[in-house]
Amino acid sequence: MKVKAAVALEAGKPLSIETVDLEGPRFGEVLVEIKATGVCHTDEFTLSGADPEGLFPAILGHEGAGVVVDVGPGVTTLKKGDHVIPLYTPECRQCEYCLNPKTNLCQSIRSTQGQGLMPDGSSRFSLDGRPVLHYMGTSTFANYTVVPEIALAKIREDAPFDKVCYIGCGVTTGIGAVIYTAKAEVGCRAVVFGLGGIGLNVIQGLRLAGADMIVGVDLNPAREPMARKFGMTHFVNPADVEGDLVPYLVSLTKGGADYTFECIGNVKVMRQALECAHKGWGTSIIIGVAPAGAEISTRPFQLVTGRNWRGSAFGGARGRTDVPKIVDWYMDGKIDIDSLITHTMPLERINDAFDLMHRGESIRSVVVY
Amino acid sequence: MKVKAAVALEAGKPLSIETVDLEGPRFGEVLVEIKATGVCHTDEFTLSGADPEGLFPAILGHEGAGVVVDVGPGVTTLKKGDHVIPLYTPECRQCEYCLNPKTNLCQSIRSTQGQGLMPDGSSRFSLDGRPVLHYMGTSTFANYTVVPEIALAKIREDAPFDKVCYIGCGVTTGIGAVIYTAKAEVGCRAVVFGLGGIGLNVIQGLRLAGADMIVGVDLNPAREPMARKFGMTHFVNPADVEGDLVPYLVSLTKGGADYTFECIGNVKVMRQALECAHKGWGTSIIIGVAPAGAEISTRPFQLVTGRNWRGSAFGGARGRTDVPKIVDWYMDGKIDIDSLITHTMPLERINDAFDLMHRGESIRSVVVY
Repeated sequence: MKVKAAVALEAGKPLSIETVDLEGPRFGEVLVEIKATGVCHTDEFTLSGADPEGLFPAILGHEGAGVVVDVGPGVTTLKKGDHVIPLYTPECRQCEYCLNPKTNLCQSIRSTQGQGLMPDGSSRFSLDGRPVLHYMGTSTFANYTVVPEIALAKIREDAPFDKVCYIGCGVTTGIGAVIYTAKAEVGCRAVVFGLGGIGLNVIQGLRLAGADMIVGVDLNPAREPMARKFGMTHFVNPADVEGDLVPYLVSLTKGGADYTFECIGNVKVMRQALECAHKGWGTSIIIGVAPAGAEISTRPFQLVTGRNWRGSAFGGARGRTDVPKIVDWYMDGKIDIDSLITHTMPLERINDAFDLMHRGESIRSVVVY
Repeated sequence: MKVKAAVALEAGKPLSIETVDLEGPRFGEVLVEIKATGVCHTDEFTLSGADPEGLFPAILGHEGAGVVVDVGPGVTTLKKGDHVIPLYTPECRQCEYCLNPKTNLCQSIRSTQGQGLMPDGSSRFSLDGRPVLHYMGTSTFANYTVVPEIALAKIREDAPFDKVCYIGCGVTTGIGAVIYTAKAEVGCRAVVFGLGGIGLNVIQGLRLAGADMIVGVDLNPAREPMARKFGMTHFVNPADVEGDLVPYLVSLTKGGADYTFECIGNVKVMRQALECAHKGWGTSIIIGVAPAGAEISTRPFQLVTGRNWRGSAFGGARGRTDVPKIVDWYMDGKIDIDSLITHTMPLERINDAFDLMHRGESIRSVVVY
């Protein structure tokens, strides 16, 4: 079938709106009509050429929501008409990782997904007869896409696509890091570094978890009002702090935070986040993606005296199990997504979303098909 | 009273056997007759002058066992004749740390202990009328010492002092890191870096916990037989490995270890220990003490993909609660201490213990009074 897609033809160039060919779903695969997709920093990271694993030409996009149009042979858990969110972290429920309750990093299709291919090692997309690669197993910058069954979360049918698509990445990454990775307890104190989309979702995750103190740290004072709306209790602008930031934050949190979250991707900030965690039990969680080759450092004494250094990918969420619950939380008014979606646009104007991101004007742009 | 002690008069010099004056116990303090004491690398670290927090003159020693001789006012949990192990990590059961189940790092007397003083800010030891400092709140290199009540674990009376004194530091540090910090599960796979006294105790902790695979890593092939006796299932000498050690260990452990332990104090090894932990859930625990100022590093991707970097001090054990249990495990034959105590000597020959340590000839030397 012919589908409309924004194709990343090469690194560093704008996306190109094309009509591409899409083959139907093969064994274990599902054809999904994408109704809306967010445009995320990770798409930008790959499109820019900075991603050492980026492959071209490809159809980017990994934050979508849509409707099942057709299923391939062997598909048993989804049917035509089901509403779904594609998952770049699948959940096969069979592999060593899925069967270990300590991780969400299903590895069953990791290698083909990393190569931009479906699990059978081929692509369903082509342009003028030449294959176009998938991206993160999702390729939501096309109005139809083929996704493995294990990489689709079935969601309720009354949830609006143009909002819940954001649960496909940013919302779950932030809220999940609090709930599934940190397992933050009611009454905890937390520090969140970086008040962009991920940081704001961490903040509302902390509010949901009942944190007593939610400190937000950002160099941009314009971020404060929105962060307060999402639950931030204290704002710290490092530019306004005399002396070192770490002792300031340790003092503010009365000895250090129970949980700290790095939502920027800056290795220096990752160190600060660790070192302002509470002696004895503080856990620091890295969410941000650092530049290729960058390294984190600290004195081992920081760990020997009880701090815990961890990371979180897709919020530690198991997509098929947890994403439908997060959709419920949105529909029940427990979390706010609407305020975070600052721009919407048709696919033809998707490059505007990257421009808005570069200029820091958007929190999240959503393409509505 | 007059007591016999090995006094560290200044950094870098041998200990000096002296007759020193010891005041009786004040409020909340206990006078203990030390019957035996281990000589640990930490004593050596301080005596050498490398410890930036080392203070002199002081009576070192922190791995003792003995008998209560007298108690000061306010002491309610110990009486004359009780057998005890002094604790350099106390357990007050009252402070914010003791009341948090995630840590064992009681802070109630941290500041005076770090200054070589009893909790009231003074020393009980003096030599020729001038104060001599306590060390780690224990000072077991004297045949009598004064220790806060909260820093004494009461143990069974049939346990031999010259063996269970080692539970005051090395045994608990190693076994505890497995049981209390890692909470290693039956069937886990583990890698232990460094097969000295701590590493061997980690290994027997893993055996006690039912680990399936216990890999020991050491450059000294002479360490292999003893480590196998303690439960090591695979020995790796990095000098015999072609190529990088980390992928070798990942392959050997079928994807990485569930738990890794650094028992050396080498920041490069700490990185290897982290990176050979299993993607998704592997936990790496730093036990070794690194040189002052040394830093650990890695790529944050190691953490984002699910590895967990932690440390352990005194094995995560709460001394008054856990040390008596470990004494029981020894008395029940669940753990071996006897094989680790390679040398015993009277106090007058304590400097021999340091020489044996420097030459790598001892696992543990014990001074018997």
